[in-house]
Amino acid sequence: MGNLVIVRHGESQWNRENRFTGWTDIDLTANGIQQARNAGRALADAGFHFDIAYTSLLKRTIRSQWLMLEEMDAMYTPIISHWRLNERHYGALTGQNRAETIAKFGEEQVWSWRRGFDSRPPLMDKDDPRSPCHEPRYDGLDRASLPLGESLKDTVERVRRFWDESIAPALREDKNIIISSHGNSQRALVKLLEDMPDEEVSRFDVPNSVPLIYTLDKQLRVLDRSSMNIPHPEVSAIL
Amino acid sequence: MGNLVIVRHGESQWNRENRFTGWTDIDLTANGIQQARNAGRALADAGFHFDIAYTSLLKRTIRSQWLMLEEMDAMYTPIISHWRLNERHYGALTGQNRAETIAKFGEEQVWSWRRGFDSRPPLMDKDDPRSPCHEPRYDGLDRASLPLGESLKDTVERVRRFWDESIAPALREDKNIIISSHGNSQRALVKLLEDMPDEEVSRFDVPNSVPLIYTLDKQLRVLDRSSMNIPHPEVSAIL
Repeated sequence: MGNLVIVRHGESQWNRENRFTGWTDIDLTANGIQQARNAGRALADAGFHFDIAYTSLLKRTIRSQWLMLEEMDAMYTPIISHWRLNERHYGALTGQNRAETIAKFGEEQVWSWRRGFDSRPPLMDKDDPRSPCHEPRYDGLDRASLPLGESLKDTVERVRRFWDESIAPALREDKNIIISSHGNSQRALVKLLEDMPDEEVSRFDVPNSVPLIYTLDKQLRVLDRSSMNIPHPEVSAIL
Repeated sequence: MGNLVIVRHGESQWNRENRFTGWTDIDLTANGIQQARNAGRALADAGFHFDIAYTSLLKRTIRSQWLMLEEMDAMYTPIISHWRLNERHYGALTGQNRAETIAKFGEEQVWSWRRGFDSRPPLMDKDDPRSPCHEPRYDGLDRASLPLGESLKDTVERVRRFWDESIAPALREDKNIIISSHGNSQRALVKLLEDMPDEEVSRFDVPNSVPLIYTLDKQLRVLDRSSMNIPHPEVSAIL
Protein backbone atom coordinates (compact mmCIF):
# COMPACT_ATOMS: atom_id res chain seq x y z
CA MET A 1 0.00 0.00 0.00
CA GLY A 2 0.99 3.62 -0.52
CA ASN A 3 1.91 5.88 2.36
CA LEU A 4 -0.56 8.25 3.97
CA VAL A 5 0.85 11.27 5.80
CA ILE A 6 -1.30 13.95 7.42
CA VAL A 7 0.32 17.20 8.53
CA ARG A 8 -1.44 20.05 10.28
CA HIS A 9 -0.46 23.45 8.81
CA GLY A 10 2.26 25.58 10.43
CA GLU A 11 1.33 28.14 13.07
CA SER A 12 -1.00 30.85 11.75
CA GLN A 13 -1.38 34.39 13.01
CA TRP A 14 -4.71 33.52 14.63
CA ASN A 15 -3.30 30.36 16.23
CA ARG A 16 -0.92 32.75 17.95
CA GLU A 17 -3.75 35.12 18.94
CA ASN A 18 -5.96 32.27 20.14
CA ARG A 19 -8.79 33.28 17.83
CA PHE A 20 -11.47 31.05 16.32
CA THR A 21 -10.28 30.99 12.70
CA GLY A 22 -12.57 28.54 10.94
CA TRP A 23 -12.86 29.48 7.28
CA THR A 24 -11.09 32.85 7.61
CA ASP A 25 -8.12 32.84 5.25
CA ILE A 26 -5.32 33.61 7.70
CA ASP A 27 -1.69 33.15 6.64
CA LEU A 28 1.21 31.49 8.45
CA THR A 29 3.49 33.36 10.85
CA ALA A 30 7.26 33.38 10.22
CA ASN A 31 7.40 30.61 12.83
CA GLY A 32 4.72 28.67 10.96
CA ILE A 33 6.71 28.95 7.74
CA GLN A 34 9.76 27.51 9.49
CA GLN A 35 7.66 24.71 11.02
CA ALA A 36 6.34 23.69 7.61
CA ARG A 37 9.87 23.73 6.17
CA ASN A 38 11.08 21.56 9.06
CA ALA A 39 8.31 19.05 8.37
CA GLY A 40 9.19 18.94 4.68
CA ARG A 41 12.87 18.49 5.46
CA ALA A 42 12.14 15.66 7.89
CA LEU A 43 9.91 13.91 5.33
CA ALA A 44 12.61 14.29 2.66
CA ASP A 45 15.29 12.95 5.02
CA ALA A 46 13.06 9.95 5.77
CA GLY A 47 12.82 9.22 2.03
CA PHE A 48 9.14 10.00 1.53
CA HIS A 49 7.82 10.92 -1.88
CA PHE A 50 4.22 11.59 -2.78
CA ASP A 51 2.02 11.14 -5.83
CA ILE A 52 -0.74 13.49 -4.69
CA ALA A 53 -0.67 16.41 -2.24
CA TYR A 54 -4.00 17.52 -0.79
CA THR A 55 -4.89 20.87 0.79
CA SER A 56 -8.01 22.76 1.78
CA LEU A 57 -8.96 25.97 -0.06
CA LEU A 58 -7.33 28.01 2.71
CA LYS A 59 -3.88 29.46 2.28
CA ARG A 60 -2.44 28.20 5.57
CA THR A 61 -2.67 24.61 4.32
CA ILE A 62 -1.69 25.55 0.76
CA ARG A 63 1.39 27.50 1.82
CA SER A 64 2.37 24.72 4.24
CA GLN A 65 2.05 22.19 1.42
CA TRP A 66 4.07 24.37 -0.98
CA LEU A 67 6.84 24.73 1.62
CA MET A 68 6.91 21.00 2.35
CA LEU A 69 7.05 20.12 -1.35
CA GLU A 70 9.77 22.71 -1.89
CA GLU A 71 11.87 21.17 0.89
CA MET A 72 11.30 17.72 -0.65
CA ASP A 73 12.41 19.13 -4.05
CA ALA A 74 9.10 17.93 -5.44
CA MET A 75 7.25 21.10 -6.40
CA TYR A 76 5.92 19.24 -9.44
CA THR A 77 3.70 17.01 -7.26
CA PRO A 78 0.02 17.35 -8.27
CA ILE A 79 -1.87 19.37 -5.67
CA ILE A 80 -5.60 18.91 -5.12
CA SER A 81 -7.22 21.70 -3.08
CA HIS A 82 -10.79 21.10 -1.90
CA TRP A 83 -13.24 22.92 0.35
CA ARG A 84 -14.26 19.69 2.09
CA LEU A 85 -10.79 19.68 3.69
CA ASN A 86 -11.34 23.18 5.14
CA GLU A 87 -11.17 23.80 8.90
CA ARG A 88 -14.35 23.33 10.93
CA HIS A 89 -16.60 26.35 10.27
CA TYR A 90 -16.93 28.20 13.59
CA GLY A 91 -20.07 30.13 12.65
CA ALA A 92 -20.67 33.32 14.61
CA LEU A 93 -17.60 32.65 16.77
CA THR A 94 -15.33 33.25 13.78
CA GLY A 95 -12.72 35.90 14.52
CA GLN A 96 -13.33 36.06 18.28
CA ASN A 97 -10.55 35.16 20.66
CA ARG A 98 -11.01 32.62 23.39
CA ALA A 99 -11.14 35.17 26.23
CA GLU A 100 -13.78 37.30 24.47
CA THR A 101 -15.89 34.25 23.78
CA ILE A 102 -15.68 33.08 27.38
CA ALA A 103 -16.61 36.58 28.65
CA LYS A 104 -19.64 36.57 26.36
CA PHE A 105 -20.91 32.99 26.62
CA GLY A 106 -19.31 31.54 29.76
CA GLU A 107 -16.58 28.97 30.12
CA GLU A 108 -18.82 25.93 30.14
CA GLN A 109 -20.53 26.83 26.87
CA VAL A 110 -17.27 27.63 25.14
CA TRP A 111 -15.79 24.37 26.39
CA SER A 112 -18.78 22.54 24.94
CA TRP A 113 -18.33 24.21 21.54
CA ARG A 114 -14.64 23.40 21.53
CA ARG A 115 -14.78 19.88 22.86
CA GLY A 116 -18.34 18.60 22.44
CA PHE A 117 -18.37 16.32 19.40
CA ASP A 118 -21.80 17.33 18.18
CA SER A 119 -22.06 20.81 19.70
CA ARG A 120 -22.70 23.36 16.94
CA PRO A 121 -21.79 27.03 17.52
CA PRO A 122 -24.25 29.84 16.73
CA LEU A 123 -24.42 30.06 12.92
CA MET A 124 -22.96 32.87 10.88
CA ASP A 125 -25.61 35.01 9.19
CA LYS A 126 -25.70 34.08 5.52
CA ASP A 127 -25.63 37.79 4.65
CA ASP A 128 -22.44 38.18 6.69
CA PRO A 129 -19.77 39.47 4.29
CA ARG A 130 -17.52 36.67 5.61
CA SER A 131 -19.98 33.97 4.58
CA PRO A 132 -18.64 31.49 1.99
CA CYS A 133 -21.52 32.55 -0.29
CA HIS A 134 -19.64 35.79 -0.92
CA GLU A 135 -16.23 34.31 -1.69
CA PRO A 136 -15.14 33.71 -5.31
CA ARG A 137 -13.23 30.58 -4.28
CA TYR A 138 -16.54 28.82 -3.57
CA ASP A 139 -18.13 29.89 -6.88
CA GLY A 140 -19.71 27.06 -8.78
CA LEU A 141 -20.39 25.00 -5.63
CA ASP A 142 -23.85 24.22 -4.38
CA ARG A 143 -24.45 27.09 -1.97
CA ALA A 144 -26.75 24.94 0.16
CA SER A 145 -23.93 22.49 0.92
CA LEU A 146 -21.61 25.20 2.27
CA PRO A 147 -21.77 25.46 6.07
CA LEU A 148 -22.40 28.57 8.19
CA GLY A 149 -21.31 26.83 11.40
CA GLU A 150 -20.35 23.24 12.21
CA SER A 151 -19.98 20.81 15.06
CA LEU A 152 -16.95 18.54 14.82
CA LYS A 153 -19.44 15.85 13.82
CA ASP A 154 -20.57 17.99 10.85
CA THR A 155 -16.92 18.43 9.85
CA VAL A 156 -16.35 14.67 10.02
CA GLU A 157 -19.33 14.06 7.74
CA ARG A 158 -18.21 16.44 5.01
CA VAL A 159 -14.59 15.25 5.23
CA ARG A 160 -15.96 11.69 4.92
CA ARG A 161 -17.52 12.55 1.55
CA PHE A 162 -14.19 13.75 0.18
CA TRP A 163 -12.37 10.80 1.72
CA ASP A 164 -14.76 8.40 -0.04
CA GLU A 165 -14.71 10.24 -3.36
CA SER A 166 -11.05 11.12 -3.73
CA ILE A 167 -8.57 10.07 -1.05
CA ALA A 168 -9.60 6.46 -0.42
CA PRO A 169 -9.77 5.59 -4.16
CA ALA A 170 -6.29 7.06 -4.65
CA LEU A 171 -4.93 5.02 -1.72
CA ARG A 172 -6.47 1.88 -3.21
CA GLU A 173 -4.52 2.66 -6.39
CA ASP A 174 -1.33 2.55 -4.30
CA LYS A 175 -0.76 6.30 -4.46
CA ASN A 176 1.47 7.91 -1.84
CA ILE A 177 -0.50 10.74 -0.30
CA ILE A 178 0.25 13.77 1.86
CA ILE A 179 -2.58 15.88 3.27
CA SER A 180 -1.91 19.38 4.58
CA SER A 181 -4.71 19.68 7.11
CA HIS A 182 -6.29 21.87 9.76
CA GLY A 183 -6.59 20.80 13.40
CA ASN A 184 -10.20 19.69 12.99
CA SER A 185 -9.99 18.28 9.48
CA GLN A 186 -7.09 16.21 10.82
CA ARG A 187 -9.30 15.06 13.72
CA ALA A 188 -11.97 14.14 11.18
CA LEU A 189 -9.49 12.08 9.16
CA VAL A 190 -8.19 10.37 12.30
CA LYS A 191 -11.74 9.49 13.32
CA LEU A 192 -12.51 8.09 9.87
CA LEU A 193 -9.29 6.07 9.78
CA GLU A 194 -9.26 4.77 13.35
CA ASP A 195 -12.96 4.85 14.17
CA MET A 196 -11.87 6.83 17.22
CA PRO A 197 -14.66 7.38 19.80
CA ASP A 198 -16.33 10.81 19.76
CA GLU A 199 -14.99 11.98 23.14
CA GLU A 200 -11.48 10.89 22.31
CA VAL A 201 -11.34 12.57 18.91
CA SER A 202 -12.56 15.86 20.39
CA ARG A 203 -9.48 15.84 22.63
CA PHE A 204 -7.03 14.61 20.02
CA ASP A 205 -4.41 17.35 19.65
CA VAL A 206 -1.52 17.34 17.24
CA PRO A 207 1.00 20.18 17.15
CA ASN A 208 1.40 22.27 14.01
CA SER A 209 3.52 20.64 11.31
CA VAL A 210 4.14 17.31 13.03
CA PRO A 211 3.53 14.62 10.36
CA LEU A 212 1.27 11.72 11.30
CA ILE A 213 2.41 8.65 9.39
CA TYR A 214 -0.17 5.93 8.72
CA THR A 215 0.53 2.39 7.65
CA LEU A 216 -2.59 0.86 6.10
CA ASP A 217 -3.51 -2.55 4.75
CA LYS A 218 -5.28 -3.12 1.45
CA GLN A 219 -8.69 -2.56 3.06
CA LEU A 220 -7.38 0.78 4.38
CA ARG A 221 -7.38 -0.55 7.93
CA VAL A 222 -4.78 1.09 10.15
CA LEU A 223 -1.81 -1.13 10.96
CA ASP A 224 0.16 1.67 12.59
CA ARG A 225 0.12 5.38 13.29
CA SER A 226 3.19 7.29 14.40
CA SER A 227 4.21 10.94 14.80
CA MET A 228 7.40 12.17 13.29
CA ASN A 229 10.04 13.84 15.42
CA ILE A 230 10.38 17.44 14.34
CA PRO A 231 12.78 19.91 15.95
CA HIS A 232 11.09 22.28 18.40
CA PRO A 233 7.41 21.84 17.58
CA GLU A 234 5.17 24.31 19.36
CA VAL A 235 1.63 23.43 20.24
CA SER A 236 -1.06 25.96 19.42
CA ALA A 237 -4.64 25.34 20.52
CA ILE A 238 -7.03 23.90 17.95
CA LEU A 239 -9.86 26.42 17.97
CA MET B 1 -15.03 33.93 -23.75
CA GLY B 2 -12.67 33.45 -20.82
CA ASN B 3 -9.33 35.23 -20.65
CA LEU B 4 -6.10 33.59 -21.70
CA VAL B 5 -2.89 34.96 -20.21
CA ILE B 6 0.56 33.49 -20.91
CA VAL B 7 3.49 34.57 -18.74
CA ARG B 8 7.07 33.45 -19.19
CA HIS B 9 8.69 32.51 -15.86
CA GLY B 10 10.86 35.00 -13.95
CA GLU B 11 14.60 35.12 -14.56
CA SER B 12 16.35 31.85 -13.68
CA GLN B 13 19.94 31.35 -12.63
CA TRP B 14 20.78 29.89 -16.02
CA ASN B 15 19.01 32.70 -17.88
CA ARG B 16 21.52 34.92 -16.10
CA GLU B 17 24.44 32.65 -17.02
CA ASN B 18 23.32 32.33 -20.64
CA ARG B 19 23.22 28.54 -20.43
CA PHE B 20 21.01 26.18 -22.41
CA THR B 21 18.62 25.08 -19.67
CA GLY B 22 16.03 22.93 -21.42
CA TRP B 23 14.64 20.38 -18.97
CA THR B 24 17.19 21.09 -16.21
CA ASP B 25 15.26 22.09 -13.09
CA ILE B 26 16.85 25.47 -12.37
CA ASP B 27 15.22 27.83 -9.87
CA LEU B 28 14.51 31.55 -10.12
CA THR B 29 17.01 34.22 -9.07
CA ALA B 30 16.01 36.82 -6.46
CA ASN B 31 15.37 39.11 -9.42
CA GLY B 32 13.18 36.46 -11.05
CA ILE B 33 11.14 36.13 -7.86
CA GLN B 34 10.54 39.87 -7.85
CA GLN B 35 9.61 39.81 -11.55
CA ALA B 36 6.99 37.12 -10.96
CA ARG B 37 5.57 39.05 -8.00
CA ASN B 38 5.38 42.18 -10.17
CA ALA B 39 3.47 40.28 -12.84
CA GLY B 40 1.02 38.91 -10.27
CA ARG B 41 0.51 42.35 -8.76
CA ALA B 42 -0.14 43.87 -12.20
CA LEU B 43 -2.66 41.13 -13.05
CA ALA B 44 -4.41 41.64 -9.71
CA ASP B 45 -4.52 45.41 -10.22
CA ALA B 46 -6.05 44.86 -13.65
CA GLY B 47 -8.79 42.73 -12.08
CA PHE B 48 -7.84 39.37 -13.55
CA HIS B 49 -8.92 36.18 -11.87
CA PHE B 50 -8.31 32.67 -13.12
CA ASP B 51 -10.10 29.34 -12.95
CA ILE B 52 -7.10 27.22 -13.92
CA ALA B 53 -3.37 27.90 -13.63
CA TYR B 54 -1.06 25.83 -15.81
CA THR B 55 2.66 25.17 -15.36
CA SER B 56 5.28 22.80 -16.71
CA LEU B 57 6.86 20.20 -14.43
CA LEU B 58 9.85 22.49 -13.89
CA LYS B 59 10.12 24.61 -10.77
CA ARG B 60 10.87 27.90 -12.50
CA THR B 61 7.33 27.95 -13.95
CA ILE B 62 5.77 26.46 -10.80
CA ARG B 63 7.40 28.98 -8.46
CA SER B 64 6.49 31.82 -10.83
CA GLN B 65 2.87 30.62 -10.83
CA TRP B 66 2.80 30.31 -7.03
CA LEU B 67 4.17 33.84 -6.66
CA MET B 68 1.67 35.29 -9.14
CA LEU B 69 -1.26 33.52 -7.44
CA GLU B 70 -0.01 34.68 -4.05
CA GLU B 71 0.07 38.30 -5.25
CA MET B 72 -3.46 37.87 -6.66
CA ASP B 73 -4.56 36.44 -3.26
CA ALA B 74 -5.76 33.38 -5.13
CA MET B 75 -3.53 30.57 -3.88
CA TYR B 76 -6.58 28.29 -4.00
CA THR B 77 -6.63 28.35 -7.83
CA PRO B 78 -6.34 24.81 -9.25
CA ILE B 79 -2.88 24.27 -10.72
CA ILE B 80 -2.27 21.78 -13.52
CA SER B 81 1.41 20.94 -14.08
CA HIS B 82 2.25 18.97 -17.21
CA TRP B 83 5.45 17.85 -18.94
CA ARG B 84 4.12 18.86 -22.36
CA LEU B 85 4.47 22.49 -21.22
CA ASN B 86 8.18 21.97 -20.39
CA GLU B 87 10.86 24.06 -22.09
CA ARG B 88 12.26 22.86 -25.40
CA HIS B 89 14.63 19.96 -24.68
CA TYR B 90 18.09 21.10 -25.73
CA GLY B 91 19.58 17.61 -25.96
CA ALA B 92 23.38 17.42 -25.67
CA LEU B 93 23.61 21.22 -25.45
CA THR B 94 21.90 21.17 -22.04
CA GLY B 95 23.97 22.94 -19.42
CA GLN B 96 26.44 24.55 -21.84
CA ASN B 97 26.67 28.31 -22.06
CA ARG B 98 26.40 30.14 -25.33
CA ALA B 99 30.10 30.98 -25.57
CA GLU B 100 31.18 27.38 -24.93
CA THR B 101 28.75 26.13 -27.51
CA ILE B 102 29.95 28.62 -30.11
CA ALA B 103 33.59 27.73 -29.40
CA LYS B 104 32.76 24.06 -29.93
CA PHE B 105 30.33 24.13 -32.84
CA GLY B 106 30.79 27.52 -34.50
CA GLU B 107 28.49 30.52 -34.54
CA GLU B 108 26.50 29.54 -37.60
CA GLN B 109 25.59 26.12 -36.25
CA VAL B 110 24.59 27.51 -32.84
CA TRP B 111 22.53 30.19 -34.52
CA SER B 112 20.73 27.52 -36.51
CA TRP B 113 19.95 25.52 -33.36
CA ARG B 114 18.67 28.61 -31.59
CA ARG B 115 16.72 30.15 -34.43
CA GLY B 116 16.09 27.46 -37.03
CA PHE B 117 12.49 26.31 -36.59
CA ASP B 118 13.17 22.66 -37.39
CA SER B 119 16.83 22.42 -36.43
CA ARG B 120 17.30 19.72 -33.81
CA PRO B 121 20.36 19.81 -31.52
CA PRO B 122 22.52 16.70 -30.97
CA LEU B 123 20.46 14.36 -28.77
CA MET B 124 21.19 13.64 -25.13
CA ASP B 125 22.33 10.06 -24.56
CA LYS B 126 19.43 8.14 -23.04
CA ASP B 127 21.82 6.75 -20.42
CA ASP B 128 22.80 10.31 -19.46
CA PRO B 129 21.93 10.72 -15.76
CA ARG B 130 20.11 13.94 -16.74
CA SER B 131 17.79 12.12 -19.17
CA PRO B 132 14.08 12.36 -18.28
CA CYS B 133 14.04 8.53 -18.08
CA HIS B 134 15.89 8.81 -14.76
CA GLU B 135 13.69 11.44 -13.12
CA PRO B 136 10.87 10.40 -10.75
CA ARG B 137 8.69 13.27 -11.96
CA TYR B 138 8.30 11.54 -15.33
CA ASP B 139 7.46 8.15 -13.80
CA GLY B 140 4.37 6.57 -15.26
CA LEU B 141 4.76 8.33 -18.61
CA ASP B 142 5.47 6.53 -21.83
CA ARG B 143 9.28 6.70 -21.95
CA ALA B 144 9.25 6.64 -25.74
CA SER B 145 7.28 9.89 -25.88
CA LEU B 146 9.82 11.79 -23.75
CA PRO B 147 12.31 13.74 -25.87
CA LEU B 148 16.11 13.65 -25.70
CA GLY B 149 16.46 16.79 -27.84
CA GLU B 150 13.98 18.90 -29.78
CA SER B 151 13.71 21.42 -32.56
CA LEU B 152 11.26 24.24 -31.88
CA LYS B 153 8.99 22.42 -34.32
CA ASP B 154 9.10 19.31 -32.09
CA THR B 155 8.21 21.49 -29.09
CA VAL B 156 5.27 22.99 -30.97
CA GLU B 157 3.95 19.53 -31.80
CA ARG B 158 3.97 18.26 -28.22
CA VAL B 159 2.57 21.51 -26.85
CA ARG B 160 -0.18 21.18 -29.50
CA ARG B 161 -1.25 17.84 -28.02
CA PHE B 162 -1.69 19.35 -24.58
CA TRP B 163 -3.41 22.41 -26.03
CA ASP B 164 -5.91 20.18 -27.82
CA GLU B 165 -6.46 17.85 -24.85
CA SER B 166 -6.63 20.29 -21.96
CA ILE B 167 -6.27 24.02 -22.60
CA ALA B 168 -8.56 24.49 -25.62
CA PRO B 169 -11.45 22.47 -24.06
CA ALA B 170 -11.18 24.55 -20.87
CA LEU B 171 -11.27 27.79 -22.88
CA ARG B 172 -14.35 26.53 -24.73
CA GLU B 173 -15.98 26.09 -21.31
CA ASP B 174 -15.36 29.79 -20.65
CA LYS B 175 -12.60 29.18 -18.12
CA ASN B 176 -10.16 32.00 -17.38
CA ILE B 177 -6.69 30.59 -17.84
CA ILE B 178 -3.16 31.61 -16.92
CA ILE B 179 -0.18 29.66 -18.22
CA SER B 180 3.23 30.01 -16.59
CA SER B 181 5.46 29.18 -19.53
CA HIS B 182 9.01 28.88 -20.75
CA GLY B 183 10.41 30.98 -23.60
CA ASN B 184 9.91 28.21 -26.16
CA SER B 185 6.67 26.74 -24.83
CA GLN B 186 5.35 30.31 -25.03
CA ARG B 187 6.56 30.51 -28.64
CA ALA B 188 4.78 27.22 -29.31
CA LEU B 189 1.53 28.55 -27.84
CA VAL B 190 1.83 31.79 -29.82
CA LYS B 191 2.38 29.80 -33.02
CA LEU B 192 -0.66 27.62 -32.31
CA LEU B 193 -2.85 30.60 -31.46
CA GLU B 194 -1.76 32.98 -34.21
CA ASP B 195 -0.57 30.53 -36.85
CA MET B 196 2.62 32.58 -36.80
CA PRO B 197 5.06 31.73 -39.65
CA ASP B 198 8.02 29.52 -38.69
CA GLU B 199 10.72 32.18 -39.16
CA GLU B 200 8.76 34.73 -37.21
CA VAL B 201 8.03 32.49 -34.23
CA SER B 202 11.72 31.53 -33.96
CA ARG B 203 12.51 35.19 -33.41
CA PHE B 204 9.55 35.98 -31.17
CA ASP B 205 11.04 37.13 -27.84
CA VAL B 206 9.09 38.01 -24.74
CA PRO B 207 10.85 39.20 -21.59
CA ASN B 208 10.55 37.21 -18.37
CA SER B 209 7.30 37.77 -16.49
CA VAL B 210 5.60 40.08 -18.98
CA PRO B 211 2.01 38.79 -19.33
CA LEU B 212 0.68 38.28 -22.85
CA ILE B 213 -3.06 38.88 -22.80
CA TYR B 214 -5.15 37.19 -25.48
CA THR B 215 -8.69 38.03 -26.45
CA LEU B 216 -10.30 35.12 -28.29
CA ASP B 217 -13.60 34.50 -30.00
CA LYS B 218 -15.70 31.38 -29.49
CA GLN B 219 -13.73 29.50 -32.15
CA LEU B 220 -10.55 30.41 -30.23
CA ARG B 221 -9.48 32.75 -33.02
CA VAL B 222 -7.31 35.62 -31.80
CA LEU B 223 -9.09 38.99 -31.74
CA ASP B 224 -6.26 40.73 -29.90
CA ARG B 225 -2.92 40.12 -28.22
CA SER B 226 -1.29 42.69 -25.95
CA SER B 227 1.65 42.77 -23.54
CA MET B 228 1.15 44.11 -20.06
CA ASN B 229 3.28 46.95 -18.78
CA ILE B 230 5.41 45.67 -15.92
CA PRO B 231 7.89 47.84 -14.02
CA HIS B 232 11.51 47.29 -15.09
CA PRO B 233 11.31 44.06 -17.07
CA GLU B 234 14.69 42.66 -18.02
CA VAL B 235 15.13 40.62 -21.14
CA SER B 236 17.10 37.41 -20.87
CA ALA B 237 17.85 35.40 -23.98
CA ILE B 238 15.62 32.43 -24.75
CA LEU B 239 18.11 29.59 -25.03
